[in-house]
Amino acid sequence: MTSSANHSNLPVTRALLSVSDKTGILELAQFLHTQGVELLSTGGTAKLLADHQIPVIEVSKHTGFPEMMDGRVKTLHPKIHGGILGRRGTDDAVMAEHGIGRIDLIVVNLYPFEATVAKPDCSLEEAIENIDIGGPTMVRASAKNHAHVTIVVNPADYPRIQAEMQQEAGRISLDTRLDLAIKAFEHTAGYDGMIANYFGSRVAGGTPTAPVQFPRTFNLQMNKLQDLRYGENAHQQAAFYAETKPPLGSIASAVQIQGKELSYNNIADTDAALECVKQFEAPACVIVKHANPCGVAVGASLLEAYERAYQTDPESAFGGIIAFNRPLDAETAQRIVERQFVEVIIAPNPTPAAVAVVAAKKNVRLLSLEAWPAQAKPSLDFKRVNGGLLVQTADTALFDSLSVVTERQPTEPELNDLQFAWRVAKFVKSNAIVYAKNNMTLGVGAGQMSRVNSARIAAIKAEQAGLALIGAVMASDAFFPFRDGIDNAAKVGIKAVIQPGGSMRDQEVIDAANEQGIAMIFTGMRHFRH
Amino acid sequence: MTSSANHSNLPVTRALLSVSDKTGILELAQFLHTQGVELLSTGGTAKLLADHQIPVIEVSKHTGFPEMMDGRVKTLHPKIHGGILGRRGTDDAVMAEHGIGRIDLIVVNLYPFEATVAKPDCSLEEAIENIDIGGPTMVRASAKNHAHVTIVVNPADYPRIQAEMQQEAGRISLDTRLDLAIKAFEHTAGYDGMIANYFGSRVAGGTPTAPVQFPRTFNLQMNKLQDLRYGENAHQQAAFYAETKPPLGSIASAVQIQGKELSYNNIADTDAALECVKQFEAPACVIVKHANPCGVAVGASLLEAYERAYQTDPESAFGGIIAFNRPLDAETAQRIVERQFVEVIIAPNPTPAAVAVVAAKKNVRLLSLEAWPAQAKPSLDFKRVNGGLLVQTADTALFDSLSVVTERQPTEPELNDLQFAWRVAKFVKSNAIVYAKNNMTLGVGAGQMSRVNSARIAAIKAEQAGLALIGAVMASDAFFPFRDGIDNAAKVGIKAVIQPGGSMRDQEVIDAANEQGIAMIFTGMRHFRH
Repeated sequence: MTSSANHSNLPVTRALLSVSDKTGILELAQFLHTQGVELLSTGGTAKLLADHQIPVIEVSKHTGFPEMMDGRVKTLHPKIHGGILGRRGTDDAVMAEHGIGRIDLIVVNLYPFEATVAKPDCSLEEAIENIDIGGPTMVRASAKNHAHVTIVVNPADYPRIQAEMQQEAGRISLDTRLDLAIKAFEHTAGYDGMIANYFGSRVAGGTPTAPVQFPRTFNLQMNKLQDLRYGENAHQQAAFYAETKPPLGSIASAVQIQGKELSYNNIADTDAALECVKQFEAPACVIVKHANPCGVAVGASLLEAYERAYQTDPESAFGGIIAFNRPLDAETAQRIVERQFVEVIIAPNPTPAAVAVVAAKKNVRLLSLEAWPAQAKPSLDFKRVNGGLLVQTADTALFDSLSVVTERQPTEPELNDLQFAWRVAKFVKSNAIVYAKNNMTLGVGAGQMSRVNSARIAAIKAEQAGLALIGAVMASDAFFPFRDGIDNAAKVGIKAVIQPGGSMRDQEVIDAANEQGIAMIFTGMRHFRH
Repeated sequence: MTSSANHSNLPVTRALLSVSDKTGILELAQFLHTQGVELLSTGGTAKLLADHQIPVIEVSKHTGFPEMMDGRVKTLHPKIHGGILGRRGTDDAVMAEHGIGRIDLIVVNLYPFEATVAKPDCSLEEAIENIDIGGPTMVRASAKNHAHVTIVVNPADYPRIQAEMQQEAGRISLDTRLDLAIKAFEHTAGYDGMIANYFGSRVAGGTPTAPVQFPRTFNLQMNKLQDLRYGENAHQQAAFYAETKPPLGSIASAVQIQGKELSYNNIADTDAALECVKQFEAPACVIVKHANPCGVAVGASLLEAYERAYQTDPESAFGGIIAFNRPLDAETAQRIVERQFVEVIIAPNPTPAAVAVVAAKKNVRLLSLEAWPAQAKPSLDFKRVNGGLLVQTADTALFDSLSVVTERQPTEPELNDLQFAWRVAKFVKSNAIVYAKNNMTLGVGAGQMSRVNSARIAAIKAEQAGLALIGAVMASDAFFPFRDGIDNAAKVGIKAVIQPGGSMRDQEVIDAANEQGIAMIFTGMRHFRH
């Protein structure tokens, strides 16, 4: 708690403006000028203000110390930092003695380091040369002395500052100053984190190297979207954070149109459903329960896709998460809400009619997305372990090559189903076995410690749903270590198989397929997902 | 690449020392002094040096600017920052003109902000007052100008600096300077990240509040332990990072004694096995495959625990990860390596004889741990979603209360087995069903979208292993939504059940247990783990 004895609330009389992002700076400067605030500035900001006839004093004139070293030490001067850090009341005499005038408002933002190094030919030297020293120092000094001064690092906060000053005779409240001070440290933490990540992945010891994927320290900054009521379980606390610029069409950029607050498990499952449904070009539906797809289908329409996805496992679909890759229409929405209990529906841009239909069930969470780009930016995946973090590039690939390894070639419909099942298997917890036919899952065997049990559970599920496996295909997320997986599949009626291959006993497995008249494709790529 | 034209390699003639961590600083200062290096310093560091008769010049004397504002602007002066940031060669004339002497070596480290705020009565104001402004500015400025100057933020680097200077007539190489510059940005990134986390969890808007669990930006810094050959799959790149101080007895603090390099999946599975085995007081063994325990047992000895854990599912144990909660002995090690293919064995302090036994199988990864404290520090758990991160407090609790809800009380052995099975279920992927008897798992049903299928797979596994379920107990990680779960359990011979309770149909489930003569305990706490 900042006690009233130790903070002041004087009107702003002098401001220092030095911004990389020029958004709104002219309007702010003009406002401050009309309020009678003296403006200090440097470089490009000073020139911009002067060009627009806004009176501005160059920092070098204010300090009486000349610009030198191409501007490297401009603001690193007691006249600036005494003016920022001086405690109003306590330090007034010493400030007067040394001719240090107080600076009440500091508007500084840093050129994003990511943009500096985004140029493909940016050298380490250029990158380092572009690191701002004076800027972060003013930002941090101002934040430290927020009891007396205001630091603004984001143009989005200009209107708030202006409104307060207008209403309060040039004053900015302590609450606002504290809020902005924290933003300031968030800004500098993010800035130095980017720098550490950049250099930490380009140097081995002190020797510059080709960039490696993983820096020697991993610095991450995320922004809280919402506190959650609880975590994976009720006795755990949780919050949902997002990247600064989450990709379009991701759970982190989705907008909740209606329904109860999203829970931790809702968010995790919606992410799984959404990323899976994005694998398909044609209208598709994915239903997820407990982190696994329990029904996936493609259809001529979204309604058909949903109807077929639902059939795979109606029992698990109860209370599930449903994702679509096309704008949700009213007919499909109607069919869902009249048939089943659903936790979340997520789709790109639901139609107004669909929104109206879902509105009748006020608890159902309806999430809307922007359409997503066909090519996703590579991202990093994390797995928490006690005391540490596994960081890996996301599994965005699908297969290495598709090679038919059996005497029999898959038929066109089989090939289609194999590709469908493979895309689903990638999103099922390992060991994963997926039975499918006509672009619809028939049984999903998830999360088993042995592949043969995943196959068994997939068959059990098909049987429970009354779905015949005769003529269906099978996808396996990793290779079959023995021929029994193929032999068992043949027994239930499987006619084609897709799997990575790569087992020591591949030939035995291929022989089994040939004996059973099964067509089999090797993808050359495994998709474990735990 | 820093080109030779733009960097210099002059001997160190002037150094600035200002450290919070005084480790080794006297020895370093003495060394620098004997090398003829002029020493600048401030505050406590200056006093310490002077007390030990090491000649030192106060920064205020060097700048000619008096100490003011309780030291707030001491080093924020062109004489210091010009001396740090001046480009040797390029800026020599301007430096001479303004009487700026070069400072070649900067030794600064920051008082850990965590320690500042660790005092329970630390106010926000005190916390802010303790934020260092001058220190990080010197650290960052020096790092930026690493082409000419050296920045040292860690006492562990003093010997390296001394050795180089001694061998190279007072010079420090460019490679070393670059390496240390990156460490400097890592240091400031971590520092401001801690500050942002601290304030971001104590303010709502700008109003100070009681601390909340989750700051408005989440700032994380981890240190790379090793690059991994690949990630969860061969086409993914990966690395393993650790917290600055990973807890004792965690995968991140474990030491690999022998064997092949750990893989991504090894690390994830070892973590799961280790955290599960830590749940038990008596000698225990956990075997994990694909992120799930496939066999868990407690025994009179470690060997007995292993023998019994193995029996649950010998097929899945093949290529598994085996964790123990007691020092691994030679007899147990011998039994493992002669019986089965094992990826990883982890145990606290294996005996030398056990190490020798495992050495015969040079591929087996053997990991050693310090004994762990009974009470773990609360930590945070992360779940990655596209574009964001779910952050939650770790699931460290076990149960709320144990209430017998049936007419029949569990017998003493049943109670024992129920508690055993409950601890295992917590570590099985949801939906989780665990059958157990005599402190040994009989069947583990993991990762199913419906609870009834988890129970079915657990029974299948018991049957596959030839283990009778008659008289066994069942643990369920979440409540039974219907009575069928109990009815099915009774059919296979289950006599006691442990589950959270909390279903709308609890009474129906209790009635089923009473009809079947089953004793049932409610824990009041769910343990989803996805």
